[in-house]
Order: sequence, then structure tokens, then C-alpha cells
Amino acid sequence: MSKGLTSREDDYSQWYNELVTKADMAEHSAVRGCMVIKPYGYAIWENMQAALDKMFKDTGHSNAYFPLFIPKSFFSKEASHVEGFATECAVVTHYRLKNDGNGNIIVDEDAKLEEELIVRPTSETIIWNTYKGWIQSYRDLPILVNQWANVVRWEMRTRLFLRTAEFLWQEGHTAHATSQEAIEETERMLEVYADFAENWMAVPVIRGKKTANERFAGALDTYCIEALMQDGKALQAGTSHFLGQNFAKAFDVKFTSKEGKLDHVWATSWGVSTRLIGALIMAHSDDSGLVLPPKLAPIQVVIVPIYRSDEEFDKISELAKEISKELKLKNISVKYDNRDTLRPGFKFAEYELKGVPVRLAIGGRDLENGTIEIARRDTKEKQTISRDGLVGHIEDLLIEMQQSIFNKALKFREDNTREANTYEEFKAILDEKAGFVSAHWDGTSETEKRIKDETKATIRCIPLNNKLEEGVCMVTGKPSSQRVLFARAY
Amino acid sequence: MSKGLTSREDDYSQWYNELVTKADMAEHSAVRGCMVIKPYGYAIWENMQAALDKMFKDTGHSNAYFPLFIPKSFFSKEASHVEGFATECAVVTHYRLKNDGNGNIIVDEDAKLEEELIVRPTSETIIWNTYKGWIQSYRDLPILVNQWANVVRWEMRTRLFLRTAEFLWQEGHTAHATSQEAIEETERMLEVYADFAENWMAVPVIRGKKTANERFAGALDTYCIEALMQDGKALQAGTSHFLGQNFAKAFDVKFTSKEGKLDHVWATSWGVSTRLIGALIMAHSDDSGLVLPPKLAPIQVVIVPIYRSDEEFDKISELAKEISKELKLKNISVKYDNRDTLRPGFKFAEYELKGVPVRLAIGGRDLENGTIEIARRDTKEKQTISRDGLVGHIEDLLIEMQQSIFNKALKFREDNTREANTYEEFKAILDEKAGFVSAHWDGTSETEKRIKDETKATIRCIPLNNKLEEGVCMVTGKPSSQRVLFARAY
Repeated sequence: MSKGLTSREDDYSQWYNELVTKADMAEHSAVRGCMVIKPYGYAIWENMQAALDKMFKDTGHSNAYFPLFIPKSFFSKEASHVEGFATECAVVTHYRLKNDGNGNIIVDEDAKLEEELIVRPTSETIIWNTYKGWIQSYRDLPILVNQWANVVRWEMRTRLFLRTAEFLWQEGHTAHATSQEAIEETERMLEVYADFAENWMAVPVIRGKKTANERFAGALDTYCIEALMQDGKALQAGTSHFLGQNFAKAFDVKFTSKEGKLDHVWATSWGVSTRLIGALIMAHSDDSGLVLPPKLAPIQVVIVPIYRSDEEFDKISELAKEISKELKLKNISVKYDNRDTLRPGFKFAEYELKGVPVRLAIGGRDLENGTIEIARRDTKEKQTISRDGLVGHIEDLLIEMQQSIFNKALKFREDNTREANTYEEFKAILDEKAGFVSAHWDGTSETEKRIKDETKATIRCIPLNNKLEEGVCMVTGKPSSQRVLFARAY
Repeated sequence: MSKGLTSREDDYSQWYNELVTKADMAEHSAVRGCMVIKPYGYAIWENMQAALDKMFKDTGHSNAYFPLFIPKSFFSKEASHVEGFATECAVVTHYRLKNDGNGNIIVDEDAKLEEELIVRPTSETIIWNTYKGWIQSYRDLPILVNQWANVVRWEMRTRLFLRTAEFLWQEGHTAHATSQEAIEETERMLEVYADFAENWMAVPVIRGKKTANERFAGALDTYCIEALMQDGKALQAGTSHFLGQNFAKAFDVKFTSKEGKLDHVWATSWGVSTRLIGALIMAHSDDSGLVLPPKLAPIQVVIVPIYRSDEEFDKISELAKEISKELKLKNISVKYDNRDTLRPGFKFAEYELKGVPVRLAIGGRDLENGTIEIARRDTKEKQTISRDGLVGHIEDLLIEMQQSIFNKALKFREDNTREANTYEEFKAILDEKAGFVSAHWDGTSETEKRIKDETKATIRCIPLNNKLEEGVCMVTGKPSSQRVLFARAY
């Protein structure tokens, strides 16, 4: 199975594309830019959703659902918002097809919409138009709502999971009585995302703020978490926006405060998407296939029988079922692969490709000796252990692997975060080693843009709790009070 | 709160509309025909999803995700399918907006799609186009996939939950090697739906098959479950379709059998939607508000404090927290309403309106006596019981209520299912009492259509395991071998 997987060294991008397809995660559909998420890939998304949804609810949020379509006029109400999204919008103009009389199905021009509808690229506008009806007084606040939904952004160059015309995500939209509360919410949700990335995805992230240039269209402040992929490119893994009163003003959403004053409502929005599946793949996987952190793996343990006779097969199957039952009682997902048309070596390669964390192999000699061969996917270490205590061993191993995968990614990031003090040094690092580059910048959009044009590197973020340090901009020599984090990015 | 809710007797339709809005279930959005599902309504959908998803997985299905958009040409490949859906399709024709130079945002005519995209009204076509790449041999079968998604059908007259332009649903799409297997799957999933309707929604259903007229566009056979609402109108609560080889032929999906023969694949599809929330509301609720079966209620128990002093309030709150903790340990969802700006009577009415199954009220005297007042929503019975054993009492009560709500609905259906032996009798029943009417019919589409035109009643289904009975069609007098079930329907 893993034969034919291009190595990361040879062509990282090709490796990724092949891996996503061969591991049955997703594939391109017949619709330009839209993907099909296959059952194995979707199972990872379901695990991500379950963990995130619990975190959202534990922080007081409820789910709701808002329309897929947004009237063009709503969409245009917040100036910078429409500016940011207008060039990538799918537009619905008609609501009926008809037979043209010659047997062809055509769009019925008599069924043209009076006002075009935009397929939501994000839902601030339709949601704030709705909130207008929900909010009169401070007693109606805060509103803490999240939506799990599909969104469409008409991307010209697409890649499975990383950039697709349609993707799945969640978008939180909250409304508050004060600026302070809204900022706290923005920061709280950033921390939820960071917690999820690090403790579920095993991907260490830098928490930071975007520069004005890179802000969400309509936000006063965009917070983000940034992760580093194995090719040294950064990936934005989640964003949390402080929207100020921009959308409340655009949709005239006011409330009466405790003191009886009328004011516009304060807003946040925050989201993560199926893009995280791309990050998960690129952060940990190797030339044999996926490496999945146990907490998000659809199958945590696979059992492969190795037998020379039907009788041996029956005995192994009996043992495998016994083990499966014990594992399930511990909430460990397990699959017994009893297909008789495939050889064990083929199955081993398949589960390596699919990143199943723990593989058990049981042969005739194991039956005699009361042993099991156990292999861990991340390090590929194998050992033969006693059947007794197997379940406890696996429980410990899954916890250890989750931590070990995180540690490896953290070490990689540390090894690939460098300081540059001159623009030459900066460019040399990017070209030779990539990774995060920490450098002084004069704080202007002009310089930021020049760096991007000349090096393809962008400011990923101004890290939170950044150390203040006097310096000069590596490009203009103007004074700077802190380093910011650059990288080439997905 | 419940003041102003029109009674069912006065205007059932108005009662429903008001109830959905006042109970914070859903509201109309600014987009024609599209609803906003509010947190309380969405929480019921989440409970429905969780139960159904587990049933789908227990019967071997996995979830996946397919594109929102369907190329017009795919959509047209199955003749009766496009015929069935063409008149209600949202069509995407452009992928970009632009500023017209005068500050107006307009559709960019330079960004016209070569081929229009249909927003999925159902996904058979895009899925079978995908399955073509997944299926070569019998070893690739069966494929048992489900999708949770939004779909759009451009309805002209819409009602919250019951008929909306966009709705949420699940659609199962399975592929099989034999006709027999596909029929078994169709029937299995109908049984899953019936099980869910009866044991979770507490709504008794008739399992049956649709007549040719009422079949899904592209199906050889449509199975359905039919429920009866309190106004005597029927509601189709779920459908399961045996699609034969229609979609496999339209998309050229063939497989090599064990015997080495090439054949088209056999298909099923099945779905239920947010319409079920409408059915849930209409089946059980009363003039005071929602009546929710405990298994699907977002809040199963609410605790309301009744106090005359801060000191009393503190003591009641302590007890309420203790009880809440005990209930949560039993997986019973509970809310302690400690809002100090509202009177108990107001809260009582609010939770009646929202259909919270069990209400506990704790007052000063209860503290002294070690008692609690407990009220059940369905019958509105109240009693004062001892604090000791409260949790066990509530556990039993929730089970009893679930059953009791079902029994009431079943009795209603039995009381409102009648036989008609002449067309006059048939029309009289419909006009005077409505409900299900069991009658003989000659089996032709012409007669079916005439009955519909003249009485607005449709054949809801030919019940499964129907009793054979010689008779004559009530309209044409032609021979008939069984009665079928008629009703006016949502």
C-alpha cells in the first residue's frame, strides 16, 4: 500500500497530496475546488467536532443554525467585510430549472431572484441581522452562540483540506455589553483553540495577534494560533476576532444598559475548519503514511491475525474478540481485521498508511506462549509482551504516544525557530531552512508588504506576552520595540 | 409567557406558528423561506442527531461529506430525478462580486460559471458520480455511507420546520451487489426510523410503501413512516428508497461479481430532516406550550426557587445545587433558574411553554419539611414528595412520561383511524373528523389523482403487512384486494 508514496524529502507537496488520497481521507470531486471527505477522513473530523463542541459548551456556548444564503445587500453593509470576501463569492441568481422543449434542462430565466443571494463565506452579516431582533437590553446579553456549518469561498488554487471552495467549520458569534467582555471572550476562545491544538491534535501553537494587514475583514483585532509544518511552512490553525461595534453598527444592533443608556453591542467571532485535518496530517505524518495522535484516531488499535490453518485462525479470532471487548470497555476503539483475502504484510502497510496508533499481531506461537506482538505507529518500535496486562499496557502506551507526538512536534518547532537580525540573514534562513523567523519590523504595512513581495514570508503573528526588546527594523532600520514572527505559510 | 398562545381549537395552524416562535425554537430569517434555528430548537435537533447517528453506526454505517454543489449536467442524468426537483432548485451562476465604480456591489459578469451549479436538493447524483470511482468489484460492496447536511428546495409556501427552502437532514446512500441486499437495507433503515419515531419522539407511526405517484423521483420503491398530528392531518416522518439500478445506470457504476460478471450496482437512499421537530411539536404539545418527550428534551428538569428572604434564597440554592449534582450523575439534564428579576409564576409559565418535562419548586416550608413540589408537564399533575428518594422518583417519572406521551398519541391515532366503504362516507369523515381513513382503491394513478383533486386527501401509504381483503374501489367500483391509508397531509 505505502509503495508509491513520494517521500517528504523528494517532494513535500506531492507527498501530502498522495497521502490524503491513498489514506482514504478525501478526494477531489467533480465540482471545481470542492472535496469529498471520505469516511476515514470524516471520522477524524467527527472526533475533532466532539472535543471542540464539548469545550464550547463547557465555556457556556450553545449551538444554533442560520441560513446558508445571505442577501447581497446585507453582505455589503460592512464595508471592509465585503471588500475582503467579494472576489470569492458563489452567487445564486435563479431558483428554477426547466426543460427547453428539446429535452435539455436549462436555467429558467423567468425564475430570476430579485436580489442575488450569496452562499455564506462566513456568517457575521446574516447573524447580526438576526441578533437585531434578539437584543433590546443588557438582560439579553451576552449571546454565546456557535454554528457548525459549511461555507464557500471561491478559491482559484485549491488543495484538499488546506484550501477548498467549500469547507466545513464552526463559527462562534457572540454579543456583549462591553468592549472588555468581548475582548475577554476573544481571548478565551483563542485559548480553547490552543488547548485543542496542543492537547488533542498534539500540535504546538504560537498564540498571537495578526497585524492590521492580516486581520479578518471587519475585525478590530484578530487573534490566531500558528503551527509549524514539517516543511518549515506555517499554518494558521484557528482565529478569534474582536469585532468591536462594527457589525452592530452596520446592522443597527443597540441595547439599553443597566444605567439606561443606549449603546451598540460588542461582538466577537471565532472559527476553525476542516483545514485542521490538513494541519494534523502535515505536522506528524511520515513517509510510510499518517501518524495520528491517539486522541483523534478513528481506530486506535488494530489486531491482525497471522495463521497457518483454519483451526489456528479460529483460536486467534477468539482471542482477538476477547481483547477487543476488553479494549472497548476502556473506550479504546479497536478493529479486528479478519479479511482472509489479504496477507498480514499488506495489512501492516495499510494500517501504517492510515496511521492507526497501535497494531497488535497474533500468531500461532503467541497462542502457545501467551504473548502478543505490539507495534506503535509513531516510532515503529515493536515488542512482544505478555497477554496478561495487555490492556493496561495499551492504555499507558496511548497516553505516552499522544505526549511523544506532541514533544516531537515541539522540538521540531524549537529547532526551526530562529532569530534574524539583518534582512540578509532573514532571507538566507527562509531559503535554506524555512521555519519561523523572529525579527524586528518597523510596524508599517508598507514594510510588511515589501517583505512579503520580496520573500513570500508574512508576519504570522505578534506573539502574545511578547518580550519587549529594543531593536531596529531589519529592512528600514527604523526603531522597533519587539520582534514579530515571520514565516512562509499555507 | 403562555398568554397570547392561540388555542389549538381556535386555530391549529396559528397555534403552531406562535408556539414555534414563542418557545424560542425557530424564526423566519430575512432570506425568503429560510429559517433560523434558535439554540433551544437546535438542542432538540442535536439530541435527535445523537440518537439517530448511534443507530446508523450500530447498523454499520459511516459518515462522509459530499459537495454542496451539483453540476447541472449531473443533476439531469436521471430523467425522473431531474423532473422531480427541477422546479425548486437554487442555481449558482457566478463566483464573484465587484464594485461597480459608484460604490455599489454588483455581480461580476466576467465571473460567470461555464456550467451552472445546483445547490443540492438531495445528493444521489453527486454521490453516485463519486461512487463510480470507489466501486470496481464485489469486494468494494456494500458501501454504507450517511451524510449530515443542509439541502435547499425552493418552496413557495414555507412553514417553520415543516417546509423551508433550506433544511437540515441526513441522507444515507448505500451501494449493494444484489437487489435483495438493497431491499433489505431499505427495510432495515425504515425500521430504524420507526424505532426512533416511536421510542425517542414518542410518536407512533404507520410503516408502509408509497404508491407510484408519491415515490421519490428516481426510486423503484419508496418506504415511509406516517404519523398523525393532533389536527388529524398526517405527516410523513421519514422515507427509505429502493433505487434499483437507476442511479448506477445514470452514472455508469458497474462491479465485477464473485462469479466474474459485470453488473450495475444496486442502491438505496433514506433520510429524515428538521421536519421531525415540527412533527414532535404538533404531535404532543398543548395550549400551554410544548410537551417534549423526556428523551429529547434539552432540559429535563428545572428547579425554581420560591423565597421570601436572601437567607432563604441561599438555603434553597444550596439544596438546588445538591439536587442538580445528583441528577447530573444520573445523566439527567437539569437547570436551576436562580434569576432574581422574575417571579416564580412567570418562570412556571415559561417552562410550561418550553415543555420542560419535570419542574421542581422549592420554598421555605419545603426546607423545613424536607419536601419538594414536583410537577410533570404532560398531565400538569403536581405532588409534594419527600426530598429523600427524589432522584429515583424523577428517574421513574421520566420513563413513565416517555411512555405515557407515546400512549396518548397512540390512542389519539387509534381514535382517529377510520374505515370508509363509500366515497361519500370517505368525504364525510375527512370533512368532519379528518384523521387516517382506510379505504379500498382500484390501484390506478388516475383514481388516486381524482381523489386528491376532489378531497385534498392523498394515499399516505400501503401499510406493510397489510391485511388482504376483497373489496371494491370506493370511487370506481373496480376490484381491490386491500385497503390503503388516506389522509390530508402536511
